Amino acid sequence: MTAKNNSASKKTIEDRAKEDIKYMKKALAQAKCAIKLGEVPIGCVIVCDGKIVGRGFNKRNTRKTTLAHAEITAIDKASRKLGDWRLEGCTMYVTLEPCQMCSGAIVQSRIDRVVIGAMNPKAGCAGSILNLLNRPEFNHQVEITYDVCAELSCEILQLFFTDLRKRNKAEKEARKKAEQAAAEAAGESEVQS
Amino acid sequence: MTAKNNSASKKTIEDRAKEDIKYMKKALAQAKCAIKLGEVPIGCVIVCDGKIVGRGFNKRNTRKTTLAHAEITAIDKASRKLGDWRLEGCTMYVTLEPCQMCSGAIVQSRIDRVVIGAMNPKAGCAGSILNLLNRPEFNHQVEITYDVCAELSCEILQLFFTDLRKRNKAEKEARKKAEQAAAEAAGESEVQS
Repeated sequence: MTAKNNSASKKTIEDRAKEDIKYMKKALAQAKCAIKLGEVPIGCVIVCDGKIVGRGFNKRNTRKTTLAHAEITAIDKASRKLGDWRLEGCTMYVTLEPCQMCSGAIVQSRIDRVVIGAMNPKAGCAGSILNLLNRPEFNHQVEITYDVCAELSCEILQLFFTDLRKRNKAEKEARKKAEQAAAEAAGESEVQS
Repeated sequence: MTAKNNSASKKTIEDRAKEDIKYMKKALAQAKCAIKLGEVPIGCVIVCDGKIVGRGFNKRNTRKTTLAHAEITAIDKASRKLGDWRLEGCTMYVTLEPCQMCSGAIVQSRIDRVVIGAMNPKAGCAGSILNLLNRPEFNHQVEITYDVCAELSCEILQLFFTDLRKRNKAEKEARKKAEQAAAEAAGESEVQS
């Protein structure tokens, strides 16, 4: 390999890293949309030839279907946009490691590469519990890049769950106070009668 | 266990076997719908409290999305019908062993039981390549019943592929004849000039 080639390949790696961060930030923007609906913030974009062809964010409770995961929504949109169930040449950027369903959908739709933000040790199927993305028995294997904007991807989830716990605690306390007030009112009414 | 209990549980097993055949035939009827579209015949129904709440057949090429697998379509419909992403209490009947995506969707949607017709040794993920339906690491495990109407389920696929191969062969021969005729016509025209 010549010096020129070395420089060219180095530039390509740097370019790819920059591009990965750029598109992961787009996926994070999708995740933020989920917060507005009170949904766990997970976001996803699919890129083909330098263009975003599919976007998605988690809407499982809002749409009342498990198929409203961010990745499934993005795959659906990309397939419609490209007019093909084969998403060869596409890269998926997703803020949280995909579950077993989404990892399966990535393999089935023949996406070339998946870029992951945060890992999901309890349920992830792209390296945590198991890795469905590059099993030799399947007819398609997916290249994986881990830890792109991992801190931001973790942070958005942690903030969501901290806020959720606070809200749940406040609601519980408000309910307890209302019950106490009702009991006191009932006691006074008994004394009066 | 008393004789009465024995008889009751025997009846329950027989009833369940009869019910399994009844609903697998409904799934096979769905598979037949796929043939009309020239799609690989795979059909599925989801049953809850003795009623079919979701139906689906493979339309991957027609709808140009990998999400048009029979199982995913049926899960989508059942979730809409029941107004919940949790399909607890539901049984899925599917004519061919589910792939990695559909097996994942079954676990994610918390379906109780899956009844399978034919196995898919090259791509099935409910016992063939791997079994995603009852892994202890996941937060849900699915009961599986194999080999219900297995012969009918195999037969419908075999007939489809035999017919497809015949049609492909006929098309290839027709194309070859047309090319030969065109070449002969071009030769005659050269002689005349």
